[in-house]
Amino acid sequence: MKTLGIVAPQSHTFDTPLALQSGASLSDYTLVYETYGTLNADASNAVLVCHALNASHHVAGLYVDPVTGEKNVGWWDNMVGPGKPLDTERFFVIGVNNPGSCFGSTGPMHINPASGKPYGADFPLLTVEDWVHAQARLADVLGITQFAAVMGGSLGGMQAMAWSMMYPDRLRHCIVIASTPKLSAQNIAFNDVARQAILTDPEYHGGDFYAHGVVPKNGLRVARMVGHITYLSDDDMAEKFGRDLRDGSGKYQFGYGVDFEIESYLRYQGDKFSEYFDANTYLLITKALDYFDPAREFGGDLTRALAKVKAQFLVASFCTDWRFSPARSREIVQALVNNRQRVVYAEIDAPHGHDAFLLEDERYLNVLRAYYENIWQDLEAAP
Amino acid sequence: MKTLGIVAPQSHTFDTPLALQSGASLSDYTLVYETYGTLNADASNAVLVCHALNASHHVAGLYVDPVTGEKNVGWWDNMVGPGKPLDTERFFVIGVNNPGSCFGSTGPMHINPASGKPYGADFPLLTVEDWVHAQARLADVLGITQFAAVMGGSLGGMQAMAWSMMYPDRLRHCIVIASTPKLSAQNIAFNDVARQAILTDPEYHGGDFYAHGVVPKNGLRVARMVGHITYLSDDDMAEKFGRDLRDGSGKYQFGYGVDFEIESYLRYQGDKFSEYFDANTYLLITKALDYFDPAREFGGDLTRALAKVKAQFLVASFCTDWRFSPARSREIVQALVNNRQRVVYAEIDAPHGHDAFLLEDERYLNVLRAYYENIWQDLEAAP
Repeated sequence: MKTLGIVAPQSHTFDTPLALQSGASLSDYTLVYETYGTLNADASNAVLVCHALNASHHVAGLYVDPVTGEKNVGWWDNMVGPGKPLDTERFFVIGVNNPGSCFGSTGPMHINPASGKPYGADFPLLTVEDWVHAQARLADVLGITQFAAVMGGSLGGMQAMAWSMMYPDRLRHCIVIASTPKLSAQNIAFNDVARQAILTDPEYHGGDFYAHGVVPKNGLRVARMVGHITYLSDDDMAEKFGRDLRDGSGKYQFGYGVDFEIESYLRYQGDKFSEYFDANTYLLITKALDYFDPAREFGGDLTRALAKVKAQFLVASFCTDWRFSPARSREIVQALVNNRQRVVYAEIDAPHGHDAFLLEDERYLNVLRAYYENIWQDLEAAP
Repeated sequence: MKTLGIVAPQSHTFDTPLALQSGASLSDYTLVYETYGTLNADASNAVLVCHALNASHHVAGLYVDPVTGEKNVGWWDNMVGPGKPLDTERFFVIGVNNPGSCFGSTGPMHINPASGKPYGADFPLLTVEDWVHAQARLADVLGITQFAAVMGGSLGGMQAMAWSMMYPDRLRHCIVIASTPKLSAQNIAFNDVARQAILTDPEYHGGDFYAHGVVPKNGLRVARMVGHITYLSDDDMAEKFGRDLRDGSGKYQFGYGVDFEIESYLRYQGDKFSEYFDANTYLLITKALDYFDPAREFGGDLTRALAKVKAQFLVASFCTDWRFSPARSREIVQALVNNRQRVVYAEIDAPHGHDAFLLEDERYLNVLRAYYENIWQDLEAAP
């Protein structure tokens, strides 16, 4: 069986400033990206994969971690690769790291050309739509006029949705997984808890922590812990950890160390995250999530917001996802149906909550496999 | 209509040390409490009301806030009082503040007689069972051999449950509202996020913040914010706040101040809480929640844990409570049914999540009213 092996990231620097929804603009920015497979002669087999909060351009294959030197596997390697549902033997797949991220594209930790110092809190807030504009410019550079599909899960699904509305002629299929047309009050509330944990950490220094040689680790740690709870289902947590005690003696510690396995797991996740993720990036991305609401300029009417969409949709959700529940995906489907647009909807009975979109699940992966098979057959049949 | 008016708290200091589950003991401790109504001649009309995380002995009527001098209403004043479901014209009701609290009974902010300094982190961890032992001693002081009922919501419900198992002869009715026989992994996870926010706040000073003249406000604030989310239902939050913006202009701020009403509300709740609640108390009470698991010493078998219970039960839950969902209450009911014990169960379709147990809801209050009416008729009919 073929594998992608080690994939070398590429990059492109843009001289023309990117005008942002906030009114600010981003100049002299670089996007890093990876590609898998081969672009065909008429550039009709390109698929763009958009990443979510804690991910990057390292979608598939192996990449060398610049800090540790270790080889890591891309975050959607079970989905993308030779013979995988999104088959890189057929499609030319692009993973691009969004600006504002901390994984290579221009972000808050990079030097602000205007000041000669790291951007820090001066890095402009970006929206899902800003990211889509940036991705479209990269598509121009790569000579891709129209994607066979734009695809993403969670925040990545929002980007796919935004593509369908902002550039209706530039994608034939829009694949939206475990996503939502807008965050709920509860979603925003959890994001704000995470932000407040970071913003009130004394080591945050108003976003200027780079200059102090510190990192707001405690804040990032708590932010990740609370986020992580929302990614897992209650049942899944119960099954994996239950009330199991860390100490084999079966005794409570009567202190504030670790009693339960779930505490150990969450703290470990928080610690690990706080060591590699940038606090300003976390803040910025959670705001992009909160702000996404394409129906807003249509008086809250998602049907109208999606009226000019030309892409065919695949929408998929997971029964145990309580962060972006199936009901939220059904809102998208209903709006498309209202417009008599073409949409396939899959609601998958997977136990792993929001995280399910990243995990191995045959039923889920087979839905994607079948959908891409159809895209491929249409491609082959095209004159 | 009669009212309770201003209720004066009482207190009792216990000379005999209280042996705790942890192996530690608490000596020279004081419990503060309030009573409403009149104890009858055979002391058969007493009802004990147990409090939850953020509450106290101020159950009903008015009390004067010792800090602000303001008159405040007791936390369950809609439930307890003359003509209320738990009618103080009929019953002698006791509200007692648990040790470890920050509302008057001996707690971490008080002087440790062993060191002459505030207990701080040296205050022993207490369990639900320890609180019940302390409450039983107070009942002895008040000359109450057997309660007509022991009652509580959430953590208070756990205390009522523990009473029924630890002192089966000392209560005729056990009223358990919006509670659970044990916390789930997700419940523990949220508690641990809150604890980590406090423990890693530099102003916490290992629990010794009193000596530094500071308070770990940021940690407490985040702890309260995350807790508060779990008290409200998703739907209720959506209805009350939705995606409403704080700024009437309808524009996003593109910064980390307040955009959404829900952010403003949660931050306000966090700020307020951090001004009056003690961090060590918060830590201690969340651990008491985590540790509660009466089935544990019976190999996880709740039916066996409840086998020797003599009290009749009223169990009530709320459909939109996702912290302690109706399924958790049904576990208690099922275990009682397995034992052929007497139990009434009410599942109330109230929109307000876990907080519903404190709120006005006619259907809910009428269930309690009817239940207490029956208790009263049994009392009257007693020889």
